[in-house]
Amino acid sequence: MELFEPAACTVDLARGVLDGAGGRYEKRLSDLAGLYEDEAAFAALLAVEDPVVYEVTDFRPSAHAGDLVFGMTRMAPGRVGREFFLTRGHLHARADRPEIYHGQSGRGLMLLESPAGETRTLSIGPGTIAYVPPFWIHRSVNLGDDHLVMVFCYPADAGQDYDVIARSGGMRHRVVAEGAGWALADNRGYRPRPPEAVAALLATAA
Amino acid sequence: MELFEPAACTVDLARGVLDGAGGRYEKRLSDLAGLYEDEAAFAALLAVEDPVVYEVTDFRPSAHAGDLVFGMTRMAPGRVGREFFLTRGHLHARADRPEIYHGQSGRGLMLLESPAGETRTLSIGPGTIAYVPPFWIHRSVNLGDDHLVMVFCYPADAGQDYDVIARSGGMRHRVVAEGAGWALADNRGYRPRPPEAVAALLATAA
Repeated sequence: MELFEPAACTVDLARGVLDGAGGRYEKRLSDLAGLYEDEAAFAALLAVEDPVVYEVTDFRPSAHAGDLVFGMTRMAPGRVGREFFLTRGHLHARADRPEIYHGQSGRGLMLLESPAGETRTLSIGPGTIAYVPPFWIHRSVNLGDDHLVMVFCYPADAGQDYDVIARSGGMRHRVVAEGAGWALADNRGYRPRPPEAVAALLATAA
Repeated sequence: MELFEPAACTVDLARGVLDGAGGRYEKRLSDLAGLYEDEAAFAALLAVEDPVVYEVTDFRPSAHAGDLVFGMTRMAPGRVGREFFLTRGHLHARADRPEIYHGQSGRGLMLLESPAGETRTLSIGPGTIAYVPPFWIHRSVNLGDDHLVMVFCYPADAGQDYDVIARSGGMRHRVVAEGAGWALADNRGYRPRPPEAVAALLATAA
């Protein structure tokens, strides 16, 4: 196997990027069509501007099993109707791969869903390290008034399956504003995964 | 496969531990006998006290291939003769497994060595994320006057091979004080790995 050179990146909190990481992508509001319940609010927001909702800078050494990808996510604050700005969310294409998220600044939430439709939430602030275990669908939500910045790390062979969320009509719960805080609200369009789909996902352990 | 519960830990910088991590171990100076060149300085230091040189708190969800272990290392500042306090150092038992180290506070260095005996160093301070690629032996060194605190993450099936360093009579280079800074010094006891040992290590890619 090829020998890689050791390397170092630097967390730039002011810009919300990982300097030296090499990889970068961003998602604008228009890339997230269909994720929010309030389509009128979404259209009204988009008519005014198409902001960057989140930006990812990442370091990907190789796709070799057992190697690690790490990077940084910077999420803008904002709402679409009563829903907070969120990431598209994913399960890993190799569903048995985990991920960790290390909060750097801002205030947010990891929304998790098991294949069988159980919901969990983990609060993320500066200094929190959230562990997303194998088989949990996950999405980040910015609950604050500032950018939410997190460092992440996952196995390089994990991959991302975004369709798993689309196939069930979204995640089971939405994260909505309630007073000065937040609450979980039912996603009325949610279609539970059939037992055979749940079993198929859980059977993918390497 | 068993479904794990999502979990969150908290970086406690003041204490230098990862709250909620579950696992913990420490290495005192007496645990590190034989690593330093100046045996008289080592014995003199140990005659006065046996300080904790480093403490690790970690979260180990499972040893499942593709799962992730993460945690925190807190290294005391100090010197043995002209050498800075260091960790024992290791290659992963599965030598093709990498590791990342994310500096939280203090000032240090990752000393790396390839199987063929090439040396690299990565400076680590707050906000640095150092990537230790597969197959690189690595050891942390505290260059500062304060504790060096780092968050780390590695594949759960990586394991640690400490003997690889002992077999070669230590790492090829030592990190020593030079003026107000540091320098690499030859380890006079170093025995290069034979080509067949290098090839055997590199052949372990999964």
